[in-house]
Amino acid sequence: MLPLLLSRRYLYSKKVVVDQALEASIMPVGPQNQKICESMKYSLMAGGKRVRPILCIAACEMFGGTDEDAMPTAVALEMIHSMSLIHDDLPAMDNDDLRRGKPTNHVVYGEAMAILAGDALLSKSFEHVAKFTKGVPAERVVEVLRRLGEAVGELGLAGGQAMDLELEGRDDTTLEDLRWIHRHKTGALLNVAVCAGAILGGASPKDVAAMETFSDAIGLAFQVADDILDCTQTTEQLGKTAGKDEAVSKTTYVKLMGMDGARAEARRLVDAALGALEPYGERAAALRALAMFIIEREN
Amino acid sequence: MLPLLLSRRYLYSKKVVVDQALEASIMPVGPQNQKICESMKYSLMAGGKRVRPILCIAACEMFGGTDEDAMPTAVALEMIHSMSLIHDDLPAMDNDDLRRGKPTNHVVYGEAMAILAGDALLSKSFEHVAKFTKGVPAERVVEVLRRLGEAVGELGLAGGQAMDLELEGRDDTTLEDLRWIHRHKTGALLNVAVCAGAILGGASPKDVAAMETFSDAIGLAFQVADDILDCTQTTEQLGKTAGKDEAVSKTTYVKLMGMDGARAEARRLVDAALGALEPYGERAAALRALAMFIIEREN
Repeated sequence: MLPLLLSRRYLYSKKVVVDQALEASIMPVGPQNQKICESMKYSLMAGGKRVRPILCIAACEMFGGTDEDAMPTAVALEMIHSMSLIHDDLPAMDNDDLRRGKPTNHVVYGEAMAILAGDALLSKSFEHVAKFTKGVPAERVVEVLRRLGEAVGELGLAGGQAMDLELEGRDDTTLEDLRWIHRHKTGALLNVAVCAGAILGGASPKDVAAMETFSDAIGLAFQVADDILDCTQTTEQLGKTAGKDEAVSKTTYVKLMGMDGARAEARRLVDAALGALEPYGERAAALRALAMFIIEREN
Repeated sequence: MLPLLLSRRYLYSKKVVVDQALEASIMPVGPQNQKICESMKYSLMAGGKRVRPILCIAACEMFGGTDEDAMPTAVALEMIHSMSLIHDDLPAMDNDDLRRGKPTNHVVYGEAMAILAGDALLSKSFEHVAKFTKGVPAERVVEVLRRLGEAVGELGLAGGQAMDLELEGRDDTTLEDLRWIHRHKTGALLNVAVCAGAILGGASPKDVAAMETFSDAIGLAFQVADDILDCTQTTEQLGKTAGKDEAVSKTTYVKLMGMDGARAEARRLVDAALGALEPYGERAAALRALAMFIIEREN
């Protein structure tokens, strides 16, 4: 129990510094861009567990870096994550009014501003990394920016979301399709969180490959857990509309594998993730705790 | 006449290589992301004068770089420009059905895909620069990525567009407001096109400052010319709906300064731009031609 308790303390303490860095990351220059900054900040500071930033920091520290080395990238990851939530919630996409128990961005600021706030968060994420990463060789920063860009593009979360929308309502979606979607829609950003952190910390190519295996497994586990939660929790517990997947007859792991099968798959993926960390022993304690946190989360 | 003729040849030859690079920049990995790639490419290859990429290449060459040094950034600039057109045309924004004489992205691919294609183009632009810029010190690449990010964010085109939408329909917009909007909505990307090219080519901070002056002036000139064209050309000539500014009672330079005043302002701005190039003599021939091209363009 003690390591787990320490790990929870680690997660909490990192969440606090990440929240501070996020709070300071967006400042209007004057009345001219106050509204868009407000809209960006509304979603960026709407809560959330900061899983991606903390993964990034933990991976960086594991390979000998500091949390200052990782912090600009950690902030960028959460900006990107917020952008994807804002755009996914739009009427033309998932049409959600509620996110983390609060009205979604476009409900508060209107659709046009929500689109622009997402665009601004996305571009600012790259600016933030390029501007504030100090004391790390520039070659590593360029590689992190390359991976961040890939993680959002047509071979990242936008590509995954596009295929997800395309297959919506169809009943011939295979497990392979579903995995492709989630590897890109959810997995790509978790992957870059871990790998960028490792690269900033000075990981070797072999280490980065191990981090790919780890993050690929937790990325899929994350999504399986999400599908399970959608079936088992109330709207209040989730902070977003529950049972929505079934209502729009979305293909989920639960639908394809049954509830027991999905639970077993989640467990299998977590085991695979933990296996990739084995060679690192105690150094990987924080990443191990994060993997457990992802699968055990209540919302 | 000879220098001008040579300049037009220069512009044309650069447009050809830029178009080739753009064509090769997006490739689906398989059926999974074919649709989003198609949507991205539809807008990226929908024509356009490639002003931003050519500005970037010309500035890079002016300071001793090659067009290979600048090409990934040139491509990125056009990806960002396409993204902004796709998102601006959305029903929730300017609601335009026609762009460069063709149906807009959301008319062809639907709103959800248009939003995602824009997001993917934006993130890919950063990936492209980080991945393909070779033979240039990594510090310069990081600085280019920082400027690109800033040019799109809340202090760039998204910020400018947000304030533009906010002031729409109001009749108390001042010339100062209008300049703020255009400095950000249109100017920021032209600015980074020139400055990023200069930085990649090895320009000194003093040279970059001269390029800021040049690009700020052509950025505003570009917008004044746009407002003039909206009043004087037909939908067919423009390739987009003409007379729209007046129909939605948008504040324009023509409205604030009259047609003659706007023409004089455009000329004044071009003179300021040319003034910033004076110290560079013949080396600045291409940028000089681009400045003239921007103000004299027919569409």
